[in-house]
Amino acid sequence: MEFDVVQSLLNGENHGKIVLLVMDGLGGLPMEDGGKTELEAAHTPNMDALAERSILGLHQGIRTGITPGSGPAHLSLFGYDPLKYQVGRGVLSALGIDFDLHKNDVAARGNFCTVDEQGRVTDRRAGRIPTEITERLCKMLNENVNIPGVEVFLRPVKDYRFLLVIRGEGLNANIEETDPQIVGEKPLLAKAIDKASEKAAEIVQDFVRQAEKILADESPANMLLLRGFASLPDWPMFPEVYGLKAAAIAMYPMYRGVAKLVGMNSLPAAQSYEEEIDMLEENWNDYDFFFVHIKKTDSYGEDGNFEKKVHEIEKVDALLPRILALNPGVLIITGDHSTPCVMKYHSWHPVPTLLYAKTCRPDGITSFGERACLQGGLGVRFPAYELMPLALAHAGRLEKFGA
Amino acid sequence: MEFDVVQSLLNGENHGKIVLLVMDGLGGLPMEDGGKTELEAAHTPNMDALAERSILGLHQGIRTGITPGSGPAHLSLFGYDPLKYQVGRGVLSALGIDFDLHKNDVAARGNFCTVDEQGRVTDRRAGRIPTEITERLCKMLNENVNIPGVEVFLRPVKDYRFLLVIRGEGLNANIEETDPQIVGEKPLLAKAIDKASEKAAEIVQDFVRQAEKILADESPANMLLLRGFASLPDWPMFPEVYGLKAAAIAMYPMYRGVAKLVGMNSLPAAQSYEEEIDMLEENWNDYDFFFVHIKKTDSYGEDGNFEKKVHEIEKVDALLPRILALNPGVLIITGDHSTPCVMKYHSWHPVPTLLYAKTCRPDGITSFGERACLQGGLGVRFPAYELMPLALAHAGRLEKFGA
Repeated sequence: MEFDVVQSLLNGENHGKIVLLVMDGLGGLPMEDGGKTELEAAHTPNMDALAERSILGLHQGIRTGITPGSGPAHLSLFGYDPLKYQVGRGVLSALGIDFDLHKNDVAARGNFCTVDEQGRVTDRRAGRIPTEITERLCKMLNENVNIPGVEVFLRPVKDYRFLLVIRGEGLNANIEETDPQIVGEKPLLAKAIDKASEKAAEIVQDFVRQAEKILADESPANMLLLRGFASLPDWPMFPEVYGLKAAAIAMYPMYRGVAKLVGMNSLPAAQSYEEEIDMLEENWNDYDFFFVHIKKTDSYGEDGNFEKKVHEIEKVDALLPRILALNPGVLIITGDHSTPCVMKYHSWHPVPTLLYAKTCRPDGITSFGERACLQGGLGVRFPAYELMPLALAHAGRLEKFGA
Repeated sequence: MEFDVVQSLLNGENHGKIVLLVMDGLGGLPMEDGGKTELEAAHTPNMDALAERSILGLHQGIRTGITPGSGPAHLSLFGYDPLKYQVGRGVLSALGIDFDLHKNDVAARGNFCTVDEQGRVTDRRAGRIPTEITERLCKMLNENVNIPGVEVFLRPVKDYRFLLVIRGEGLNANIEETDPQIVGEKPLLAKAIDKASEKAAEIVQDFVRQAEKILADESPANMLLLRGFASLPDWPMFPEVYGLKAAAIAMYPMYRGVAKLVGMNSLPAAQSYEEEIDMLEENWNDYDFFFVHIKKTDSYGEDGNFEKKVHEIEKVDALLPRILALNPGVLIITGDHSTPCVMKYHSWHPVPTLLYAKTCRPDGITSFGERACLQGGLGVRFPAYELMPLALAHAGRLEKFGA
C-alpha cells in the first residue's frame, strides 16, 4: 500500500510490540510424491499451538511466479513493494559484507578476470580464484590506487568477487557496466548514462586504468570487471512511515544491511539463535518493532539437506516460548521466500505465514504448514508487503480511514 | 505483471514445454439447487488423477464481476492484462474471419441497415438479413467501390454483419462511428478524432458515399453503418516477452487470430479435437509453447445444453493421456471464461484452473471442479494473466529477482 496512507492513519497508540520472525527460505516442497514439506515434517508443537490463536496464509514476496532474491524478499516483508523499490546490485553487495555505505557513495560489484595480451577477456572469473587471493588483490589495489579528491575502497566478497566503493563530492551512479559478458571481447568503458554521472564515470575509468597496471603481472587475475553501479536509495524510512522504533537482530550482514537500508537500527551480529533471543529480551523495552532473522533454514535448503532444514525449524520452535513470554502484541512467523531442499535453490512458491495477535479472527487452522496455510484467513499468495499494515492494525496503531 | 520484469529474468533454460489447454467457456453453474456444475458432473478420471499432482484454483480474465469477451479472455490467459491491452472491435472482427490484417490497415465492423427516403435509419440491422445476402452485397461493393490510392476490402461476417478494411499509406484509425445507435436518425459522418486520422476518415466518407449509391436499389439493406475503427496494436510480442516459440492450435479463426495478434504461430485450422492433438504431436519438437483451443464447451454452454457440454469435457478428458504422453514440463487446463448452461451466456464467474508441473507444491485437491478448485493452491479469483509467469517459473525459465 501507499506509505502515505498508512502514515496518515498512525494514531500514536501502542497495544504491544511487533515481532517479525523470519526463517530464511522457510517454504518448501516434498522430496517425493505424497511426502511432506520441511515445515510440515518438522515437529513444531509451539507453533502449532500458536496457530490455533493466529491467522495463517501464504505470501509472495515479488509477484506470482517470480523467485525472490534475499534483498527484495526482505524489503517486501518490511512493506516495500520490491518492483517499486529496487536497489542496485552494488548496494546489495555492500550490505552483504557490512560495508558502511554513505549517502552518495557509488558502489559496484566487481569480478577479477583474466585478459590476454591484447586485453581481451579470456576468463570472466579468473579461474574462480579463492577468496584469499581476492583479499590480497583488494589490499594491493587499496594501497596503490590514487585518485585525487575521492576515496576508493576495495573489499573482498567471495571467491573472485569484490566490492568497489567510490566516495567523494558530486558523484552519481548511472554508469554502464564494464563487463562485456562474453569472452573474447575487451572490457567495456564505464560510460556515464546521464550528465550527472559523468564525474563518477571518469573516476571509474581512471580507477580501471590504474588497476590494469597494478594487476598486470598477476595470474590468472590480471584485470577486473565492474557492474551494478548504484548508490543508497532515497526511500521513505521504516521508522517514519510506521511510527515504529525498529531493531534488526540477525547473524549475517546481508540481513542487517537490508534492515539498515530502510532505517532500522541494526543490533550487533549475534552468534546463535539463542543469542538472537537474548538480544530480543535485552532490548525489549527500547524498541516497538523487532526483525529477527534465522539464516540456516535457507542454507540447508540450498544444500538440499531436508533433515537439517527440518531440525533448524524445530530449533526455532523450541525458542518460541521465550518470545511469547515477552508478550508481544503481534508476532509474525514466516520466511522471506521458499528454498525447497528438492530444488536446492530459492523458488517462487508462496511462503507459509502465521500472524498472532489477540485480535485475530480465528480461521480454524491448528498447525503451521504449507497445506494448512492454504485454508487460512490470510489467504493464498497475498503480497508480503501487506503484512506490515496488518501488523500495525493488530497493534492498535492505525485509526480508521475516513469518517 | 510488467512484461519487462519477466523478460529481464529469462535465463535461456528450458525444463520442458508448456501446454495451455483452453476449454472455451469451461466454468459453469448447477442447473438447479443442490446440483453439480458441468465440470463437476463430467466423468474426468484423467483430469482428476492429474489434479493430485497439480495446483488448482479459479482465475478471472478481466476483473471481479466483469464478464469477459473471448478476445480479452484469451489475451489475459496469454499474460496481457485486458484493461491495459485493449484491441479494437474492427480488429477482432478481422481476426474472427481469418482476414489477414496488415500493420496500419484500418478495420471496422459494419452492419447493413435500412434507411428511408430521407436517409434516416429505419432498421439498424436491415431485417437481420441472412449471411448469403451479406455475401452478395459485399461482393458487389468490392467490385464497384473505387477509391484511388487505397485498397478497400469488404468481407461478410454473419447475418447482417461485415468487415471493412482500408489499406493504404498514412492511415490511422481514430475515427468516429457512423452508427447513430437509434432509428429515426441519419447515419453519422465518419469524423477524424485526431489529425493523423484525417486522411483515413476522408476515405471512409468517400466509401460511404459510394456505397450509398451502389446499395440504393437494394431492399431492405440499402445502406451501411460502421463502428469500431481500429488498427493492429503495437504490443510486446509473446515470443519475445517470454522467450518462447509459440504455436496456436484451434478450430475457429477467432482463436487463431488472437494468438496471431500476440505473435504466436497459428497452425492450420484443425477439424476435430483428435486432429488438434495430432497437430500437437506432429509439431511437438518445433515449439516451446502450445495454445490448444477447445471450442464446443462454450457453444453448448450458450445453447444451454448441459449434457452436451458435459460430454465435450469428457471427450477432452479422454484425450488427456495423449498430451501427457508427450511429457510436457507444464500443462495448464482451464477455460477462458465461464459459460454456464443455465445462463446460456458468458459469465463473470471465476474459471477452474489446473496447473501441472513436477515442481508443484501439493495442495491436497484430488478432483477438477469448481468447488474443489476453491481449496487449491492457486487460490480463488487470481488474475488469469498471472498464469504465464507461473508457467515460466515451473518450466525453469526464470532467474531469481535481485540478489
